[in-house]
Parts: sequence; structure tokens; C-alpha cells
Amino acid sequence: MTAVVTEPRTLPELDETDLARLDAWWRANNYLTIGQIYLQDNALLHEPLTPAHIKPRLLGHWGTSPGLSLIYAHVSRLIRYTGQQAIYLAGPGHGGPALVAAGYLEGAYTEIYPKISQDEAGMLRLFRQFSSPGGIPSHVSVTTPGSIHEGGELGYVLVHAFGAVMDNPDLLAIAVVGDGEAETGPLEGSWKGVSFLNPKHDGAVLPILHLNGAKIAGPTVLARKDPNEVRALLRGHGYDVVEVEGDDVPGMHFRFAAALGTAWRRIREIQTAAREGDWDGSRPTWPMIVLRSPKGWTGPDEVDGVKVTGTWRSHQVPLSGVRDNPEHLAMLERWLRSYRPEELFDRTGAPNALIREQSPKGDLRMSATPHANGGLLTRDLDLPDFRGYALDVAAPATTRAESTRKLGELMRDIYRRNPDNFRLFCPDETNSNRLGAVFEVSDRTFMERVTPDDVKLGRDGRVVEVLSEHSCHGWLEGYNLTGRHGMFATYEAFAMVSASQTVQHGKWLQEARNLPWRAKVPSLNVLLTSTCWRNDHNGFSHQGPGLIQVVLTQHGDVARVYLPPDANCLLSVADHCFRSRSYVNLIVIDKQPQLQYLTMDEAIEHCTRGAGVWEWAGTDDGTSDPDIVLACAGDVVTMETVAAAQILKERLPGFKTRVVNIVDLMTLPRPKDHPHGMSETQFTELFTDTVDVISSFHGYLGGIHQLVHGRPDADRFHVRGFIEEGTTTTPFDMTVRNQVSRYHLVMDAINNAKRLPRGATELKAWCVAQLARHDAYIVEHLEDMPEVRDWTLADRTTG
Amino acid sequence: MTAVVTEPRTLPELDETDLARLDAWWRANNYLTIGQIYLQDNALLHEPLTPAHIKPRLLGHWGTSPGLSLIYAHVSRLIRYTGQQAIYLAGPGHGGPALVAAGYLEGAYTEIYPKISQDEAGMLRLFRQFSSPGGIPSHVSVTTPGSIHEGGELGYVLVHAFGAVMDNPDLLAIAVVGDGEAETGPLEGSWKGVSFLNPKHDGAVLPILHLNGAKIAGPTVLARKDPNEVRALLRGHGYDVVEVEGDDVPGMHFRFAAALGTAWRRIREIQTAAREGDWDGSRPTWPMIVLRSPKGWTGPDEVDGVKVTGTWRSHQVPLSGVRDNPEHLAMLERWLRSYRPEELFDRTGAPNALIREQSPKGDLRMSATPHANGGLLTRDLDLPDFRGYALDVAAPATTRAESTRKLGELMRDIYRRNPDNFRLFCPDETNSNRLGAVFEVSDRTFMERVTPDDVKLGRDGRVVEVLSEHSCHGWLEGYNLTGRHGMFATYEAFAMVSASQTVQHGKWLQEARNLPWRAKVPSLNVLLTSTCWRNDHNGFSHQGPGLIQVVLTQHGDVARVYLPPDANCLLSVADHCFRSRSYVNLIVIDKQPQLQYLTMDEAIEHCTRGAGVWEWAGTDDGTSDPDIVLACAGDVVTMETVAAAQILKERLPGFKTRVVNIVDLMTLPRPKDHPHGMSETQFTELFTDTVDVISSFHGYLGGIHQLVHGRPDADRFHVRGFIEEGTTTTPFDMTVRNQVSRYHLVMDAINNAKRLPRGATELKAWCVAQLARHDAYIVEHLEDMPEVRDWTLADRTTG
Repeated sequence: MTAVVTEPRTLPELDETDLARLDAWWRANNYLTIGQIYLQDNALLHEPLTPAHIKPRLLGHWGTSPGLSLIYAHVSRLIRYTGQQAIYLAGPGHGGPALVAAGYLEGAYTEIYPKISQDEAGMLRLFRQFSSPGGIPSHVSVTTPGSIHEGGELGYVLVHAFGAVMDNPDLLAIAVVGDGEAETGPLEGSWKGVSFLNPKHDGAVLPILHLNGAKIAGPTVLARKDPNEVRALLRGHGYDVVEVEGDDVPGMHFRFAAALGTAWRRIREIQTAAREGDWDGSRPTWPMIVLRSPKGWTGPDEVDGVKVTGTWRSHQVPLSGVRDNPEHLAMLERWLRSYRPEELFDRTGAPNALIREQSPKGDLRMSATPHANGGLLTRDLDLPDFRGYALDVAAPATTRAESTRKLGELMRDIYRRNPDNFRLFCPDETNSNRLGAVFEVSDRTFMERVTPDDVKLGRDGRVVEVLSEHSCHGWLEGYNLTGRHGMFATYEAFAMVSASQTVQHGKWLQEARNLPWRAKVPSLNVLLTSTCWRNDHNGFSHQGPGLIQVVLTQHGDVARVYLPPDANCLLSVADHCFRSRSYVNLIVIDKQPQLQYLTMDEAIEHCTRGAGVWEWAGTDDGTSDPDIVLACAGDVVTMETVAAAQILKERLPGFKTRVVNIVDLMTLPRPKDHPHGMSETQFTELFTDTVDVISSFHGYLGGIHQLVHGRPDADRFHVRGFIEEGTTTTPFDMTVRNQVSRYHLVMDAINNAKRLPRGATELKAWCVAQLARHDAYIVEHLEDMPEVRDWTLADRTTG
Repeated sequence: MTAVVTEPRTLPELDETDLARLDAWWRANNYLTIGQIYLQDNALLHEPLTPAHIKPRLLGHWGTSPGLSLIYAHVSRLIRYTGQQAIYLAGPGHGGPALVAAGYLEGAYTEIYPKISQDEAGMLRLFRQFSSPGGIPSHVSVTTPGSIHEGGELGYVLVHAFGAVMDNPDLLAIAVVGDGEAETGPLEGSWKGVSFLNPKHDGAVLPILHLNGAKIAGPTVLARKDPNEVRALLRGHGYDVVEVEGDDVPGMHFRFAAALGTAWRRIREIQTAAREGDWDGSRPTWPMIVLRSPKGWTGPDEVDGVKVTGTWRSHQVPLSGVRDNPEHLAMLERWLRSYRPEELFDRTGAPNALIREQSPKGDLRMSATPHANGGLLTRDLDLPDFRGYALDVAAPATTRAESTRKLGELMRDIYRRNPDNFRLFCPDETNSNRLGAVFEVSDRTFMERVTPDDVKLGRDGRVVEVLSEHSCHGWLEGYNLTGRHGMFATYEAFAMVSASQTVQHGKWLQEARNLPWRAKVPSLNVLLTSTCWRNDHNGFSHQGPGLIQVVLTQHGDVARVYLPPDANCLLSVADHCFRSRSYVNLIVIDKQPQLQYLTMDEAIEHCTRGAGVWEWAGTDDGTSDPDIVLACAGDVVTMETVAAAQILKERLPGFKTRVVNIVDLMTLPRPKDHPHGMSETQFTELFTDTVDVISSFHGYLGGIHQLVHGRPDADRFHVRGFIEEGTTTTPFDMTVRNQVSRYHLVMDAINNAKRLPRGATELKAWCVAQLARHDAYIVEHLEDMPEVRDWTLADRTTG
């Protein structure tokens, strides 16, 4: 998208006409918010409220809602005057009814859900569906038009906002940060988005810190801090702070309109300067707003003699006894009528002209912006032919290469061909992960001071490195959900840092699949490298393949796990992932030099099937069942499996082994459990239905145990994998400690084969001896300190 | 521990004698750091360096090390003068060799590991063991004396430090924050520890933000920000910032000594005022230090014409070609000799008098402080008899109660009996989770402004609520590792936010079990409540039982998962967990009113076994195998299982069901896979070895699949559980969507029993009809909006 440079237009001061519209819209939104929480009948209060009009179960969150809708109304006015494209992210997403009401008032809700019509019957359905079985969730969710941000797990509103505006120069993301959310680590860590935002080719984020004072059960830190400290903190984060405080109406409207006008003007000044060349390259001090308004503002001030507005008591349902307590019921009625619904809705129940005039038109309505339904804007990546990056493999298992380097080269050319549509996010490890070829085309983006000693670092870079998995993951989510492509590459162990984001994004994608109006978005591609098996030098804290296990809990509609064993398979898998939509694609492969097995043609066929027999590795002639099946998923365990098969071939002639390699882990479960699951016929073709399977796995054993459950005679799968044994050691010792070394696999094969040729006992004894030599070697090494190289020990003990 | 009020003693200005000791110690530490990275021989450079003296593989991190050791040296001097008890937490824990060298110079290392003696042979072993197979990890780890903080996953140094000093009034935690780490969310979110720290009964944290400019591959945000912004940020977080900058020696020693003296004096003033009654209750502005020194300080300035010191190039091994490149080798020798080792170590290789005088004595040495080996200080909790909180259960499955309320009452009395030894950490949900009884004894702690409208909030509170799972989890870890007890209670779904901390803490505990010198510490007790099944009202983002799956990946030495089905079982399990040591105890139970099954005596027996047959629920007479086994683990699925058994009892007379409830999930695996695993005999007694088992599980199906793998005929386990289907709906609908409702279980029982009495076909048809009625009800409800209560639908459709 090219930046459209327009003259900054000024948001005019609020006049009486605008005030009338704005306030009417806000009152209407508050009315509809309360209606959703309370009413199952008498939507427009045509008759006095009775207990029968009240929902049997009161759910929803009032406290944050009036602030959310106030901001929404003012931004809508800004849009009307300026034509600014804007997206609204509600950090306090439990204020769901306010955002639903906004979409309803703007008409977008009815366009998507025609039954929720803009009349009294539709309004009643709007109320009834809220937080009800068969209806909609209580939080801002996938069902909410205009949202790319789920209102559940807190902490990600700024990362989503920054991700949404990267390479999206015409977009303004309004990011409301709740003061509860502001206590989370991921949120505090994400203010620094401005240090990575280029005013020329990125859009802008306007954070609005909404300090309403309390969370569920008590006050918040920022609300109770000295305002000077809050101001210092936000200035320290790099923002120009505009403050608005109060609870007076219309005073607050005038002040907030002025604040928003100021903030927007500064944003446009920064952008115009950058885009018209009048920029010295220093990091802009972007504006933000601190809004202090009472929690539950305009709601009942006191209930039963206790203060409610302005306290945590207004967080959810401020009047809880309305069905049984006539006084509460009367207060609710007064409260509802205080918004003067008769001035807001016409006789049919539709929003009247005043309210309609307040809303922007068409796609400029925030509830209708295509940026929040990013699939509508998604362009396919212009992908080079991945076969052009093939590694030449003359014979299997003879050469070594760093597979991820090839992926780096592919991504370099994706960057080249897609200069505004693709980003790599990585916690400071792009080079370490051997993906550094991308720097031939794009620097790291950095808006703080750059010095002559810096390398591949600059304003116009679009590789994004920050030492925060939370930020990397969240930025990519925001980038994806607004229709752009990318990858998050990280050390395998530390992918657990952002595991909850992977989980929540999967839930989002899963729900979106059930909504026909949501167009599919680019998949979330996660590359796990620097894996447990090869973090031998960094030690146990760096050894943890846990994210696979997490993704296995996700729904089959979205979860994909790939374990390419070599470079050509990695290229094939990556190409597939970059073309896919609305999945969580997990790709796991190490960065160290590793054995290469398949030519590109073979790799493509293998990856297309997802799993297959490697005839060259085993001794199975295919005419009858083998004596044992050696299955493997993951690069290092594949090497050990191939080595084990080789040992068996050399030392046990006549013993029939079949080697099966699995790239697509989701081929293992039954088709009814995952759409990639292979048919029982295919499964039996690979694994037979009676022969024991020695299954070596990159991750925790339970991964395979659960995936083969329900397959014919699953008990015959003997799984070896990561059993949480690690330290700083050699790579080969990692396989020994976790009992997945070639020697362990050979012994497993012998122990579990139904038929054993002569020599098996001797071979087992030999394996035991090899492992004993290895152990002795490890114990003794400090004394003789021999050369310790990759797999040296294996070479020594095999040789 | 009672606060010892002492007169603030002043740290004297640095004089020449002290400078000589301090600088010698620092040079010695740097020398030993580089030795660990490079040398396998010629430890004291008695001969010119040759390639043969160099390790074959160069590992370790130089860049942060000189800063870490400078700080260590100065704090040691502070301790010598003041007797201050201090613990050192190295956020940049990859500076492992510096901390190892510190322990070695202080003698503590040799006391623990006698082979690493204080002579030349020991020094050589120190060098060789570093980052070598069979040796020690490259990062600060469990093996490092004086550490409670693993140097792997970044972001937790401040939470660990604050947790360590809570209720630990005499302890000062020196927390070095790396500027890479400072980019993470959890770290940024943890500056706010001061908002929860009481100067009277808690100790102090002195954060030292070490801005050395770069991380692995580039500059950091804070290092490149305008220093005014950094200062504003830290002031905004609530600190009094003392700054030290430079690379001149001895100038830096003088300036850092002065800064440390200032900071310590401020800390003691704050503490003395608070403890002697001269405190107005306002939150102190605690001091912190910003130290700006070059990355790789005192190392080679340029290598091959490229600047190294002060850049990311010095992050790990600044001279990488020493074995092959004579120039590099010569530079290394010059570098090592620049510390003048002959002035530091005597002829035997032992640290000389200058260095010994610099170290504090005995337990005051930071490498020997018992606070970093918290098991030494651990006192058993004074626990009330949990049986005194028993819920009266006249008959199983007849009454409902909120089980966690009972736990709240138990914890209230634990607070009462252990006023300085027990804490509950919770993200703002103590009341929501029905644990509010603790507030009868202790407020929430809060050091920011408290108003008259606040409830149970105050300076002296010791219940800790902050809206950050990261902070709660990390504070508890710090509290545990220094020998105190506690619990982290959280919404089940959002426990995934801190999942990586659970993983890393498990790794710590696992490694500690292998080190005899590390005394066992109180277990990390995690209560997951507000579970997926009962977050029907909050929707899909709040429905995720993923942490169980994560804990299942942990080592059997540490991982424990309990699913008490009712209040009395919860009490029994909690009592066990509070008495246990060095485990990760996960307890999963919902907070809503739920059926109660067992009397206290029955609960104790049941929980002691971990799993057992509930005769009253089934129709099995024990004389022969039943027709089906109905197994269940988790409160809601237990209710559905009991209901299914009841339906079968009423409608299929003669059909023999056995109901097995599992409390301790780790009884399911084989004993070789987990120490709690029941014997095959016990397993067969419960589950037979041929009868099909309908196994309903609180979490994801894969949990049970993997745990029963390898058990006799594991294929007969038909698992139902959470299949990632959720939304805002009714609790019963959650069981229907996830196919674990009573009707599903009855149909499963019928479908899988080997023998079926008459009436089975009709009963299946009835179940299908019940589910159809339910579905129709959900579809229609918006029209008639009937009362939607817990399980109303089940009652309606069963009735």
C-alpha cells in the first residue's frame, strides 16, 4: 500500500450540532449496553419495567463500557471530518456490549446479521443474544464486526495495533489500554512499538490509556500512582502525553474532542513531514491520550448505600438484585431512562437521524473497516519458485548443510518481491537462526539512535527484531489479521513464552472459520529452530520442545505441525505454509549443519504425502511385512533412526527394517480427529497393522502417544523422544540422555521384533558397550579434554 | 523473620586499600571468566599461550561478564562494611562464568565442589568443566552457588528478587537487569514490584539496570534511547535513579562505590523510618542504579579492524579464531595478561590475600548465602488440621457447595498461624475464586494510594494481587526458593500466560534434586480454578485447560497434577501439597457450586490412593469384571460420569458399571514413567485388563491417551474431554459441545460394552433424543428466553 500524502486537515472544535449528535450517539450506545446486560423484553421502555423484563442471568461488564463508547464516538467524528481510515482495538475487551452496540448503531451489525435488525424486534434480539447460549460472547470477539482483538487474555492490544499498522500507512489504530491490562507484562513491554514504527511507510497507533481506577476487585497501580509518575512513565516510553480528566458532561466531550484533535494533528504532522521528506530521521514523539473517567460512568452512583461508580463494584453488573429488589429495579429504570431513549430511536426502534449523522459512511465506519476483516484485503504473496533454492543432494545422508539458510534465501526473495506485504519477526536471532540472507534486502527496523558501527539496522528496515517473544508474536498476529503475511522465528524453548498467544490466536482463527463473513487471513507461521537437541551448548533452560504439545491441543481446523527433516523438505513445507490461510503452522527444524536426505523432487512428493517410507534407508522389500518399523519425526531423531537402520543393515543381514519418516505430524491421527489424518488403509500401508513400530520423535513422547491412540493396535508404537533430560553437553549426548540414540533404537528394534535372526544378541551387547564407552567418555573428558565436535562421540563410538 | 532495626551505617568512600582489593578481585574474576571460555591448559599462563592450550569449542558469554563482576565486587565490599545480608540475581544469566568465578574466588565453590580446588589444578578443572559435557552449564544455573535465578529465559530477574525479599526484612536483593532482558514484557511489567513492597516487614530490592548497549545481534532500545527518556521511564516506575557511566578505571570504581553507597543509604533510611515508626505510609521512592559501561569492557577493543568492545560482537566470544589465527592467539594472551594474574594468585594458584580480604566472610558471601539455598531456611508450615474444614456430606452426590471456599478458609488459618511464612498470589481474583476468607486475616498488599472506599487493601496486607500472571508466578518462585510457602491461584485458561515459567521452574527443581547440597524447598503450588467447563459465561477465550498438558511434559521427579472432584478431596490434596517439597503441584478444581461426593474420611483414603472405585456410583459388585468401566478425572466430568452411571443403573438393570475416580493424575502412567504410577496389579484391579473404559477427563484427550499408553490394552480407553469447543453458553451445553455429557457417556458405555442387556438400544435412542432436545432448546432459547441456570438444561432434559 502506498502512503497517500494528504494535507493535514484540522478537526474542527466541537460545536453544538456536533455535540448533539455525539452525545446522542454516546447515550444510545450506553442505553444499548445496559439493555444487553439486563433486558429480555420491553427494549425501548414503552412500559414501566417489571421483573419479567429482566434476564434471568445478568452477565456482562458495564464498568469500562461508557469510556469505550465515548472514545468510539469521538473517533467516529474524527473520521467524518477527515476521512481517516481507522480501526478500533478495545484492550478492555470485556466491554463487549459497548462495541457490539457501536456496530449496531452504525448499521454494520445488521448488514452482517440481518436478524439483528434496526428496529425494536432487532434490538430485542440484540439484547437477548448477548452472553446467552446460542448467542454471542460477552467479550469483544470474532463475532464482533470491526474487531481484530479478542477481549479475553489481557496484554496484547498495543502489539496487535502496531502489527496492524506496519506497512499500512493510511491506517490509524485506536488502541484503548485498560488500566487493569496495563499491569500485565506483555502490555508494559509493548509501549516500545514506537521504537520500531516508521512514519513514512507505516501507519500510526494512538494509544488511549483509559484510567478508570479499578479492575475486578480493587484499584490499579497506574490509577493510584502520582499522575506525575504516570506522565513520566509514558514520556519515558517515548510518548507525548495528552491528558483528559473528569466526569462532567458536556465538558468531557469538549475536552476529549480537543485532545483527540491535538493528537491527530500531531500524528498527521509527523507523517506528512516523514512522507514529504522533511524529516531528520529521529524517532518521532508520537502522541497518546490518558483518559481519566470514572469506572461505570453515568451508572448508578451508589447502591444500597455503597459507592459503585468509580469503584471496582461497577466492573460487571452494578445493580445485581433487579429481579427481586423493587428498589434496584426502579434504579435500573431511572438509569435507562436517564439516556432519554425517546430522543435516540424513532417509533420503529431504529436509530434516529441524529445518530445516523454521527456515524461515518460505508467502509469508514470502524465496525465495517476492511482492515478488521483482513482477508478482504489479503493479496497472495508473490512467491518465487521454491525449487530454485533446492540443495543438491546426490545421495541421501551423505552431505550436511544448515537447512534454515535455504529458508533465509527464500525469504530474502519474498522480501524482494513483496516489499510491503511480508515481514519476519524474530527476537534478535535472525542471524543466529541462519536466516540472515534477508538482510541482503532489508535491514532490521529501528527508530532509536543508529550509529556507524551498527550493521543492517535502519529506519527503512522491515525485519523486526526485539527481545520479546510477546511483541514478535503479537505484531505478526496484527499483521496477519489485517491481511499481510509473515513468519515468527524463534528459539524452540522460548516459544513457550508466547504459547498462550498461540493458543488464543488459534481460538480466534477457529471461530472465524465458522463465520462466513470473515474472509480467511494469512496463516500464523511459526518457525521453531535452535531446538532442544542442538542447544547442547546452552543447557537445560534452552531445551524444551513444549510448543508442539501446546499446538496439539488446538482444534484440527487450525493446528498444523511440520517437522521437515532436511532443507528441501523445509522449502516445500514453507512454500505451502506461505500459501495457506487461517492456520497456525508450526515448523520445527534446527539451524545447525545436518544431514540431507531428499532431492527436491523427492522432498515435494514426500511433503505432499506428509509421511512416507524411505526405501533407501531400510531393508524392507515391500513384499511382506518387515520385522520392525522405524518411524521418525524431526531432524535429529531422523538422523538417529537412519543411523540405526544402517547399523541393523550392516550387522543383522536378513533383518527387515522399514523406515518411515513423518513430516506432517497431523497425518498420524485418524481422519475423524484431524483433517490431515491419513486413512486407515494408508496408515496400515506405512505402519502395517501388527508389526511393532519404534517411533522416535522430536518432542515429548506424549505427542505421539496421543496421536496414534485409536490406530490399529496402538500399543505397538514404542515411542522415544525428549524425556526432559538435558544440560550443557554434546549433541550426541543429548540423544543418549534422552534414550533416543541410534544404539537405543537398535536395541528397541531387537527387543520388539517378532522374529530375530542370528546375531541379534551380540548386536544388543555391542550397543550396550557403545553406550558404556560413551558414558565413560563423558565422565572422563575433563581429564583429557579431547576435541568435542558435533557427533564426534557418535563417530568415535560407532567407528 | 523479624526485622532487625540497626542504625544505618555508612559505606565509607573508597580508599586506596579498598580500591586495590576491589580492583584485584575484579581483575581476578575477569581473568577466570576468560579462562573458562578459552583455556583447557596453562591456566595461570606460566608459559606462552599455544593453540594446544585453547579449548576445542569456544562457548560462553563475555560481553555482560565484566559488568556483572564489577557489581558483585562492590556489593561484596558493601557487605563487608555493613554486614548487610544480600543475594545476587543476574538477569543476564548468560554471564555464567562471571558468577561461577565469583563463587570460586569466595571459596564457596570449592566448599561445595571440592575437586574445583583453590589451586592451579582446581583452576584448570574450573576452566575445563565450563560449558563442557559432564561439566556445568554455560549460564548461571542451579549448580551455581548463590543463585536462585536461572540464566536462560529472560524477563524474571525482578520478580524473583521481589519474591525473595517479601517477608524477608533483612535481605537485600541485588537484581541486575540486562538491557536485552529489559525489552521483554515480563521484565517491564515487573518494575512495579515497589508498589507491593512494604519497607517494614519486607526486605529491599536494588535494581541495577546495566545498559551495555547491545544484545546478541544489535543494539537495545533502552541503550539507544535518549537518557532523559530512560530516566523518566524509571522515575515513572517509581524509582530514584542513580546513574554511573564510563569505562575509565579506577574512575568507575569510585563512581560506582559512591552510587552504591548512596543507594544503600537511601534503602536503610527508608527501612529505618518505616521500622521505627517514622513513616507516613506513602510508597517510598526506592533507589536504583543505571550502570552504563561498554559491553565486553576490558576486552579486545578491535578485532580484525572491526570494533568489538561496546558492540554486539563482544556478546559471546570476542576472539573466535584463536586456535588457528596466531594474531588472535597473541591478542588473547595480551588480554589475559592485562589482568596481571601474577598479582592475583599465589604460587599454588590460590587467590592471594588481597582477594581474600575483599570477600565477606562465611554466610555473608553472596555465593554462600542461605537465602539462595532456601531449603536450609525452610520452616514447616504450621498447618491447622484440614479435617476441621470438612464439608458435611451425608450422602454422595446430593448437595452442592463451592469447594474452593473451603480452601479459602484453610488458607485463612494458614495465614493466621504463619504470619511471615505464607502468601497467596493471585491476579485480582481471590474473591472471584471464592478464596476471600483469607481477607479476614490479611488485606491485599498495596503501597500506592489507598482510599476510604477501598476494601481489604492496605500496607500490611500479605495477599498479593496484581493483574499479571507473570508477576504472581515469579514472585511465588522467589518466595519459594528462599524457603517460604505459598500458592498461585489463577483462572485456568490464563495459567497459560505463565506456562513457560512453570516449565522453567520445573527444570530448576529437577536439576536441584540432583545436587545434594541444595536443600529441598517448598513446592510451587498452582491452583487452577474458574475452569473451562464453568467459564460458560465468559466464552471461548476463557476456556482452555492447557496447563495440565504442559505440566505433563515435565519430569516425573517434579510434576504433580491433582483433580479433586469435591471440597473434601481438595482439602486433603491441598494439605498434602503444602507439606510437600520441590514439586510443581497443579491442583485443578472449579469455584462454582458443585456436587459433593465424599466425607472427609473417604476423601482422605481416596486421595491417599490417588484413584479408586466409587462403589456407590456404579452397579459393579466386585465379584467379576463389570460390563464397562466409567473413569473420570476432574469435577465436572465426574458429575457427568456419576449421572451417566445413574442413568444406566435406572434404565439398564443388570448392566454392570464400575465408576473409577482419579484424583492424582500421575497414578495413571506406569511406575517406570512416573513415581506415582500405580502398579500393574493396582491398575488392573481398577480398570481390569480387558473391559473397555469410558474415560472422561477435565482436559484435552491427549492427556489421558499419553498417560495410559503402555498400560494393558490401552486401546480400550475411550477418552472424552475438552475438545476445544467453546463459547458463551450454559455449563451443560459445554459438556454437550465437547461430547462429554452424561448422554454421550451412556452411549459410549453401550457402544463399547461387550455384553448388552435388553433395553440398550432404546436407551441409546433416548440419549439421542435428549441431546436433540437440548440442541433445539439452545437454538430456540433466544425466542422464549427461559431461565438459564447451572445445569437447568440437564435437569430439564433428564427430567
